[in-house]
Formats: sequence, C-alpha cells, structure tokens
Amino acid sequence: MTKGATLLKIAMLIYPAMFDMDLVGPQTFFQRLGDVDAFHVWKDRGPVVSDLGATYAAAHDFDTCPADLDILFVPGGLKGTLPALRDPAVIDFLADRGGRAKFVTSVCTGSLLLGAAGLLDGYRAASYWMVRDLLPLFGATPAHERVVIDRNRITGGGVTAGLDFGLTLAALLRGEEHAKLLQLLVEYDPRPPFDAGAPERAPAEIVENIEALRAGEMAAALAAARAASRALGKA
Amino acid sequence: MTKGATLLKIAMLIYPAMFDMDLVGPQTFFQRLGDVDAFHVWKDRGPVVSDLGATYAAAHDFDTCPADLDILFVPGGLKGTLPALRDPAVIDFLADRGGRAKFVTSVCTGSLLLGAAGLLDGYRAASYWMVRDLLPLFGATPAHERVVIDRNRITGGGVTAGLDFGLTLAALLRGEEHAKLLQLLVEYDPRPPFDAGAPERAPAEIVENIEALRAGEMAAALAAARAASRALGKA
Repeated sequence: MTKGATLLKIAMLIYPAMFDMDLVGPQTFFQRLGDVDAFHVWKDRGPVVSDLGATYAAAHDFDTCPADLDILFVPGGLKGTLPALRDPAVIDFLADRGGRAKFVTSVCTGSLLLGAAGLLDGYRAASYWMVRDLLPLFGATPAHERVVIDRNRITGGGVTAGLDFGLTLAALLRGEEHAKLLQLLVEYDPRPPFDAGAPERAPAEIVENIEALRAGEMAAALAAARAASRALGKA
Repeated sequence: MTKGATLLKIAMLIYPAMFDMDLVGPQTFFQRLGDVDAFHVWKDRGPVVSDLGATYAAAHDFDTCPADLDILFVPGGLKGTLPALRDPAVIDFLADRGGRAKFVTSVCTGSLLLGAAGLLDGYRAASYWMVRDLLPLFGATPAHERVVIDRNRITGGGVTAGLDFGLTLAALLRGEEHAKLLQLLVEYDPRPPFDAGAPERAPAEIVENIEALRAGEMAAALAAARAASRALGKA
C-alpha cells in the first residue's frame, strides 16, 4: 500500500498450541503494512497446529531465518508457551535474533519467552494478566497496560491485546495515517457488551473462579519460569 | 466449563481466502462455551487456505454436516465471499441448514452469504461497512451496529466485530456470568490507540482513500450480490 517504503522483515514465531488470536490479531496488521516480508518461523518446517486446530507451516526454520530482522514477534498461549520455555533451541533462537532485531515484540504469554531469552532484563513489559507477575524472574517490570513500549521492546497484554498492539506497531512503522486506514479496513471499533476484560474490573468471583480453574496451569507456569530464570542466571 | 449443559452443535463455514480474524474471533469464544461440538464445514474436506495462509480442514462436508444445528456461523473476507456467493452448492447448503438452525449467524461479509441464501429476508442485519448497503438486495435492512440481534439472526459488523459478536452469543447461550468469564480469559479490554474504526468517525480522506483502493472489489461485490439477488428472485 505504501509504495517505496523499506521492505520490512517480520518474523513471527509459531509453535504448537499457540493461541490463534494472539497470532492472527497482529498478523492482520503486519500483512497490510505494505512492502513487508512477514513470515512464520519455527524450529522445523513441519506443520504446527494451533490451539483452535489450524495448521501453520513455517517459511523458515531457526537456521534459515534471516539474521537481521525488523520485527521479531512472539505470540502466546500458555499451553504451548510452557514447553517452549523449556526448549533451549527456542530460547537460543530468540536470544540471537532478538538481540539484533529492530523491534522485539510479543503478545500475551509470549513475553515470558522473550524474558527467558534475556530480552526483557531491565525493561517494562506487558503480559497476560495471569502470568505477568512472573516477569520479574527475568529482570522485567510488569506493567498493567494494554501495550507497553520501552525503547525497542513492544509488548502487549493478553490474547485480544494483539489488536491494540498491532495497530500501535503499525503507527510506529508506517505512521498514524496508515494505522488509521488499517483500523478502518478491519473495522476495529470495539464494543464489548460487558466490562469484564481486566481483572481490576471483572467481578471478584469471576477472577477467583478463573484462578481456581487454572491453578494447576499457573503452578506449572511458575515452575517453568523459575527454571528458565535459573538457566538465565537470574535466580 | 459449564457442566451438564446441553451439547451445542456449532457449524462454522470455512472457505478459501476467508479472513482469519473473522473466524478466530468467534471461534475463540465458541470453543469455550462448554459441552460444544464446534466444527468447520466446507463443500469438501480438503484443506482450505485462509487469507493469512493458515490451513483449515473441514470436519464435515455439506453432506455429512448434521441437519439440525444450534448455530450456523459464516465468517467473511470479501475475496473469498464473492466466489462463494456464486456457488449454488454453498448457497443451497446455507439455505438448508440455516432454515433449521436455532441461530443463524455471521460476521463481516458473511452476512452477504446468509442473504444470498434467503436467510435475511425481512431481517435487520450487520455487515462489513463497505458492503452493508448491498443487504437490501436480499430483503434485509442494513444496521450500522456492531452486533445485530433480530429474532434468531445474529450478525456482526466487519472483521474485528467477531469478538463482540462472540461474546454476545456466549451470553445468550450460557449466560452473562459465563460470558464475562470468557471475556476475562481472553483479556478483552480493548484500547485502540485511535478512533478510526468506523466510517462515521474516521477522517474523511481515509474513508475516501479506502473506497478508491477498493473500487474494483466493490464493483465486483455489487455484481455478485445482484446476481445472487436475481437467483433468489428478489431482483
């Protein structure tokens, strides 16, 4: 759409059980930035099956992924994030490309992976509300915000925050005018019928209900984050 | 999540070049309604490739799809909607299952397909802002709203409206308490950085810019909708 703009290299990590919404929200905007090479990357090029059962194929594996990226993006989805946190191949890849990328970005629990790769040490960052208190294990300061920009680290909150994140990044990269055009193209004029999308405003019993339902998963997340923190030499 | 609830049969039409966001937004909620059989359906069970390049496989084709559905859902994405509008197999399938489903639903340009199947005649309906003026060709009254409920027809606006649509439907089917729980689970607390998501509020030059960029596609949409309207005996 924007002619003559610099070609942007955008690598989106994909992984088994990742949340579809975490990827699709941002990619909806990435794909429409004009003059982009936006591709999926994973440790191998075999099919990756998402939380909702869609199949993605990586265009690059960790070896063929370009060394110097404009954007490194990591989606979330805890069920998939936890095994990835324990996988040195994933963490080493993120540390390498993230150390050189122009923008290091994530949505949802993706920031745990950035953290485990040592990319958020000394940075403010957002994450999914249920896990953001794990960020200090990686030297990061959790922010209760929808999108956090700290120097070249841009992190979004949980799941649906990928839309606000994608639009914010579009404006940074291509200007507000282009971002607004994309916002209208995807009719992003949200009207949630309830105001329960943040733990600070949802009814207390709903927050407690989710915390009870997810207690096992949260314990597993704490264990995985602690192990990743130790591997990073932080704990 | 809701134990003992009635099993809900939810058929989601998938088709080549459909918009990922149109499907993923609603399905993120559908999948978490508890006791659901939520599946993709297409004319055959071969792989369907979406706008963003994800691959979906239909669990049912038009023959094996259960006759009596709780929800028939149709996503949008104009590039894919237009060929589907001209495909009698698709239209006949929608007319048949839609005529018996408890809820007949869509997001974005999906409402054109419902309209072409004769399912919106005499109903108010939402659609993607660029095509909603085509709805009268199918006897429907276009509504400039995010989610429209008219009896058992529930239609959402463009692309990202699928989140508001999904949450609205979740509340109708499982109650407000469960819908709020889902809203918090996916942290749906939108904070768009700009207010350009509706043509009524976007800068006029951006609306005109999009209309110019999409003029060819809009002419094709008008032609396809007129042909579908004639096939329906409306024009």
